[in-house]
Amino acid sequence: MELTAIYHRPESEYAYLYKEGQLHIRIRTKKNDVQKVILHYGDPFIFIEDKYEAKKEMTKVTSDALFDYWQVTVSVDFARIQYLFELLDKEGQGVFYGDKGCVEHTQENLDADGNGFKLPYIHEIDGCQVPSWVSNTVWYQIFPERFANGNPNLTPDGAREWDAVIAPNMDDFFGGDLQGIIDHLDYLKDLGITGLYLCPIFEATTNHKYDTTDYFGIDHHFGDKEVFRNLVEEAHKRGIKIMLDAVFNHIGYQSAQWQDVLKNGEKSPYKDWFHIQEFPITEDKLKSPRELPYHTFAFASYMPKLNTANPEVRDYLLSVATYWIENFDIDAWRLDVANEIDHQFWRDFRKAVLAKKPDLYILGEIWHTSQPWLQGDEFHAVMNYPLSESIKDYFLRQRKKTEQFISEINSQSMYYKQQISEVMFNLLDSHDTERILTTAKGNIQHVKAALTFLYLQKGTPCIYYGTELALIGGPDPDCRRVMPWDRVSEDNDMLNFMKKLIKVRKEVASIIQHGNYRLEEVEPDVIALRWNYQGKEVQAIFNQSSEKYTLDRDSVDLASHCQFEDGQQVILPDGFVITVSK
Amino acid sequence: MELTAIYHRPESEYAYLYKEGQLHIRIRTKKNDVQKVILHYGDPFIFIEDKYEAKKEMTKVTSDALFDYWQVTVSVDFARIQYLFELLDKEGQGVFYGDKGCVEHTQENLDADGNGFKLPYIHEIDGCQVPSWVSNTVWYQIFPERFANGNPNLTPDGAREWDAVIAPNMDDFFGGDLQGIIDHLDYLKDLGITGLYLCPIFEATTNHKYDTTDYFGIDHHFGDKEVFRNLVEEAHKRGIKIMLDAVFNHIGYQSAQWQDVLKNGEKSPYKDWFHIQEFPITEDKLKSPRELPYHTFAFASYMPKLNTANPEVRDYLLSVATYWIENFDIDAWRLDVANEIDHQFWRDFRKAVLAKKPDLYILGEIWHTSQPWLQGDEFHAVMNYPLSESIKDYFLRQRKKTEQFISEINSQSMYYKQQISEVMFNLLDSHDTERILTTAKGNIQHVKAALTFLYLQKGTPCIYYGTELALIGGPDPDCRRVMPWDRVSEDNDMLNFMKKLIKVRKEVASIIQHGNYRLEEVEPDVIALRWNYQGKEVQAIFNQSSEKYTLDRDSVDLASHCQFEDGQQVILPDGFVITVSK
Repeated sequence: MELTAIYHRPESEYAYLYKEGQLHIRIRTKKNDVQKVILHYGDPFIFIEDKYEAKKEMTKVTSDALFDYWQVTVSVDFARIQYLFELLDKEGQGVFYGDKGCVEHTQENLDADGNGFKLPYIHEIDGCQVPSWVSNTVWYQIFPERFANGNPNLTPDGAREWDAVIAPNMDDFFGGDLQGIIDHLDYLKDLGITGLYLCPIFEATTNHKYDTTDYFGIDHHFGDKEVFRNLVEEAHKRGIKIMLDAVFNHIGYQSAQWQDVLKNGEKSPYKDWFHIQEFPITEDKLKSPRELPYHTFAFASYMPKLNTANPEVRDYLLSVATYWIENFDIDAWRLDVANEIDHQFWRDFRKAVLAKKPDLYILGEIWHTSQPWLQGDEFHAVMNYPLSESIKDYFLRQRKKTEQFISEINSQSMYYKQQISEVMFNLLDSHDTERILTTAKGNIQHVKAALTFLYLQKGTPCIYYGTELALIGGPDPDCRRVMPWDRVSEDNDMLNFMKKLIKVRKEVASIIQHGNYRLEEVEPDVIALRWNYQGKEVQAIFNQSSEKYTLDRDSVDLASHCQFEDGQQVILPDGFVITVSK
Repeated sequence: MELTAIYHRPESEYAYLYKEGQLHIRIRTKKNDVQKVILHYGDPFIFIEDKYEAKKEMTKVTSDALFDYWQVTVSVDFARIQYLFELLDKEGQGVFYGDKGCVEHTQENLDADGNGFKLPYIHEIDGCQVPSWVSNTVWYQIFPERFANGNPNLTPDGAREWDAVIAPNMDDFFGGDLQGIIDHLDYLKDLGITGLYLCPIFEATTNHKYDTTDYFGIDHHFGDKEVFRNLVEEAHKRGIKIMLDAVFNHIGYQSAQWQDVLKNGEKSPYKDWFHIQEFPITEDKLKSPRELPYHTFAFASYMPKLNTANPEVRDYLLSVATYWIENFDIDAWRLDVANEIDHQFWRDFRKAVLAKKPDLYILGEIWHTSQPWLQGDEFHAVMNYPLSESIKDYFLRQRKKTEQFISEINSQSMYYKQQISEVMFNLLDSHDTERILTTAKGNIQHVKAALTFLYLQKGTPCIYYGTELALIGGPDPDCRRVMPWDRVSEDNDMLNFMKKLIKVRKEVASIIQHGNYRLEEVEPDVIALRWNYQGKEVQAIFNQSSEKYTLDRDSVDLASHCQFEDGQQVILPDGFVITVSK
């Protein structure tokens, strides 16, 4: 047995309170190395007299390139648990694994106090709770300047023509606004959307609004507070939640606070709101991005970084966060550049916003693995870019082998506690990436397959505005073209596909969110994804090979690039099907 | 290369801010498997244009039975770091390891964004800071009822004779009090002690006082607030810090709060101060410990568990914690049963007490590995029982092989961030264990060796009252015998040994706290411990074999069970020496 591969840590995604008193205990071993894992467990104080009260065999839930992952669900009587893993290999050789690492497979070691791991007392308040509505949500991301122009009176001077053929320049305006979103809420409802993620809408100078100048005001090109209030109310009437973008890592160059610092230097009351190394801040010091006299987002001089450890700044930003909840009833905050702000701030943020709205969803923008932010005291979820990259590499870029793709998906399924996985924000593209149809070099069938795979993952899927209308676009700013409303029609293939996919997703959401899955290569480059929950099953087959794949059943709930041959459903190369067993 | 053995996680003891902008980066590999590890690192935004700015070879700092541990210290310019490990084996085969796990050893993978780990922005406020005075402290634990009787007027009726020959019963009283401690401060100063850890001194019914009835009062058998104030002042005059014991997990059965619950049941204003499953709580329900209608410490009905998640309870306990700081200037809190209280409470606790006294030391009672509590937002350290057990098994119980002992010490040296290791509370025995001289079956030489090894570890050593006078005692309550003051004399061998050991420890503390060590078996069952820091060295040799060991040098700063033979220093079996190079 490869002892060095064995890994477990209490109070992490390897040992946690799932819900309703259920504990999930996981362990990782070298792939194909261990035959059986048994969890010995019980109350630590009963242990002193009577040793472990129970044992339970663990299930190998998934495997990646290097590891097998095992899991078991247990519950305890007194909110305390002590536990020890017994691992047995194929030759029947065993080892115990616990707080002192691997110890010999002897009765003495099983009975020894101090060998076991502990969750000393399981407090609800330390649990990792998520809002119940999120796992059923289908999101739609809007870049407001480009979605729809509902009030031409607000359109900036010099705005360009509303034409999706135009590749925007960095500084272009087109005239999108909040009224434009209100005007299309019925369209979004018809599409099946139940959550809107709006890129920043507060006063700012750029078209993207990530350089906030006033966190308490709606950008004057987008509308005003009355229009925004109306947007939230109309969305809520249609069962659509509203998520705003909180840009708290940095502020806009034109904000009153930063301008005061520029003007008054060290005498500014805002001098400690930032990370400034040298006063005064003069124009000539801004020429070389890597030699700026203050910290910024990236090396962008127009986005000075806020000192969120300063209690004044913290209180100010928290008042922003609660203001839009209290006065406008928003449902979620997406947190821009969330990983560069201090953890203490986010803990205070969580307490402040959940005190106002206990089921508010807190989503961090983090691109890498994010365990430190997902312990139950900061965010509910992060933007799931690792999943995006795996799916895009496989379905859109064709540069990943099937085996590796499966390995990556399996590996990622073990990144977080299950309740976190259920509310992860799953996306393929955004205002920060090229659009998936461009990644797919225009191959719409590849895009459909990628989206379908995304919609069949634990977590809550999002599409970026225009995806349902086959909008293209390279990296920022090209991925921010205007919405091609002229393409909307009853026979728009991609639009109809998205409606169908969203409908199926909603039907199977509970199977996926609470169930177990298997992802297998059933023929070379043909993958089968199966979810099971309480006797219900959903199955999808994706044919990524260059051969036809004949399905061994008739009934499908969604078929794409398939045809009937001799009375059998045949999946053509790049095609796929979903079957829901009822 | 055994890829499954490789482990690193950002924002853990594997990647953290040490002090003054220095980052420690660690990685773990299979023992004797990897030849070289190189850290590639730089700013993540510079990376986008110019890839990693620097690389640095890591040092193999220690090894245990299964793993090698590597470490490197780096600093960065913009408080952000992205990094990737390059591992090379003895055949020159390599692999890169980062946020996506192991990837092929290609230039493309070195240059690919997303492969590296990140510390996205290193905030001081998230750093793990420890009070500077602690690492130089030598602690002494007092069980007040048994240390000294300074005021016979306070002695409980029926108190037993002050005689260390008496093995106490569970409910015995002997009459120790705070005046008794004051009376012996000069003794403690002369011994070399600079920190006193006092077991609970607040009003309670038992002799151990872990069943608090009034957190705002000094137990009337121990004295009053004026005596306590005097104790703190007199201790401070002598350079001795005072640490009190905070028993916040549970309260005493006779406390007003619990008595109110017993009397008024569900109508009690304190009903939510506890974890009660069933009202009313009647005598007959207390008969079977495992069927109590409320949660307790262990299954002890007289110690009902407090609901620390209740804001009322939290505020009450925090007011206790700050009261003794503000009004009596205590220097540290030791937290009883710290692992069974919720993390949110401890985070609030840390903020509250450090706001009153920024250099207060927060020590948790936890017996197992404690990473979740030592992230910089809860405790500074825990009681280092894993170290106690390893040392006792090896030096006192003679049931551990030298190789395994070395492996355990090395493994434990990597448990925590270095600044945590520097303030760990290192002890061999306490009021909760049998006394070490009893563990050693009366062999004082073994006890001396164990203490010497303890005093040469990173962390801050403690002795339990009476150890310096060779007091014996089995498990609780026998380990709580009265202090044998009659043994104090100028030629008490153990007392003189402890004075000498403490003196040497103080001389070498900075070498140990900031230096690197090697622990080796130089001859069968002869171990050499060497610490190096900035050219200074301290070396100790422990002869655990049954043969004499001849030292290859003359000068020693502390020798025990040694003799000169033919002009050479010879360490007899069970003997040891310490040499400090100046």
